[in-house]
Amino acid sequence: VIDHQPARTLRLTIAYDGTGYAGWQRQTNGLSIQQLVEDALQTFCHAGAPRLSVHGASRTDAGVHALAQVASVRVPFDAPARAVWRALNVRLPLDVRVLAVEDAPHTFHARFDASGKRYRYRIFTASVLSPFVRAYVWHRPYPTDVEAMRQETTRLVGTHDFASFEARGAQTLDSIRTLERVDVEIAPDEIHVVVEGSGFLRHMVRIIVGSLVEVGAGRRPAGWVGEVLAARTRGAAGPTAPAAGLVLEHVRY
Amino acid sequence: VIDHQPARTLRLTIAYDGTGYAGWQRQTNGLSIQQLVEDALQTFCHAGAPRLSVHGASRTDAGVHALAQVASVRVPFDAPARAVWRALNVRLPLDVRVLAVEDAPHTFHARFDASGKRYRYRIFTASVLSPFVRAYVWHRPYPTDVEAMRQETTRLVGTHDFASFEARGAQTLDSIRTLERVDVEIAPDEIHVVVEGSGFLRHMVRIIVGSLVEVGAGRRPAGWVGEVLAARTRGAAGPTAPAAGLVLEHVRY
Repeated sequence: VIDHQPARTLRLTIAYDGTGYAGWQRQTNGLSIQQLVEDALQTFCHAGAPRLSVHGASRTDAGVHALAQVASVRVPFDAPARAVWRALNVRLPLDVRVLAVEDAPHTFHARFDASGKRYRYRIFTASVLSPFVRAYVWHRPYPTDVEAMRQETTRLVGTHDFASFEARGAQTLDSIRTLERVDVEIAPDEIHVVVEGSGFLRHMVRIIVGSLVEVGAGRRPAGWVGEVLAARTRGAAGPTAPAAGLVLEHVRY
Repeated sequence: VIDHQPARTLRLTIAYDGTGYAGWQRQTNGLSIQQLVEDALQTFCHAGAPRLSVHGASRTDAGVHALAQVASVRVPFDAPARAVWRALNVRLPLDVRVLAVEDAPHTFHARFDASGKRYRYRIFTASVLSPFVRAYVWHRPYPTDVEAMRQETTRLVGTHDFASFEARGAQTLDSIRTLERVDVEIAPDEIHVVVEGSGFLRHMVRIIVGSLVEVGAGRRPAGWVGEVLAARTRGAAGPTAPAAGLVLEHVRY
């Protein structure tokens, strides 16, 4: 048996400010984080070597950020992990930083092996948007009933069909997912929605936030998010909250 | 007596990300915060009205940030302060935000009336620079003896001739200033130097930080900052720390 797959698997931990990018996933129109990392790694390979494929745990949307995205890649070179780490950070722009490069078991796959992910969504509530967080929040300088938002979150925790919270046109076969945690936290001038679960549909966190805010703003009554969930159709839910407020915080294995 | 000075004085509180600007002060080469604010205010005046002059409490350098710069301006119009506040934020770019506009006593002058200012300087010490703070810190991923830095600060508190901590070529007549506070604080992955005083020379905080770091890095012995102070010449001190790490936090009246 001839195995053409390289025998070595690297695990990368990557932080990025997603503001200027078309998201994690390689795109034909727009620069993605995946492409940047693949291109930077390719420089370790012989000319003419097959293209490397870097797999991220989360396919973050355009404009979404990551504190610690995890990615895996099979590589045909044997440079020490520490040298790869240094070289990647020299080659990548300053808004994409590789926090760690480690040798992983041959079969490790960042997406399929992940057991859970945690996202944080930041809503900025002061009347004037701070210049220092403007790329990382949704600015909503309006009265918001945080306790009402908290009440709605109880409907979402657990295993449900989240079809109402999936972007239109997504090609998912199965929209059943499990959320272990949906918390609404208070920070100075901010409201944070923290969501943790084993898997997420496209735009799921942003539609959940957009729906919780409908109740927090008083435009929908208590219990409405439960009705949205039961409807199992995107049209029932609130708007998709802006990408800038979302950050991938942690991937669990 | 004919008084051509407008009778109304406004007090502005302004936050800005200084990254893209030539500093507070109007420059012939490069866009300043002062110019942006003056131009935005000018739109309230009749065509042909004399140019407004906005005076800032601190003339922050190019690349230096402000959480709450205070500025004063005499204006010939009587639009309510709240309307001026709203209109300024519509006209200014998102990295310059007016936090407040208030009517002030006619004689109020943001610079001459200030009794003190507080600055914070952020040093980022983790090996990989976080994309989210890269514009607001000095990245120094090297061992640093914080306790040694703290010891040096005791030499600086009080009234001294700070000539060693003044930029070369500055045209100050008198380099005697009073520092009430020089603290070295620890934050996650960061060291902060907090300096509060009644007045500051050009580059003073940045040269103080550059000098404290010389001792923290072990390149200079304990007590060296006291020798620098006594020398009363710029050449005796450490390098000027980069502008990006500095933020004007508070102006006291």
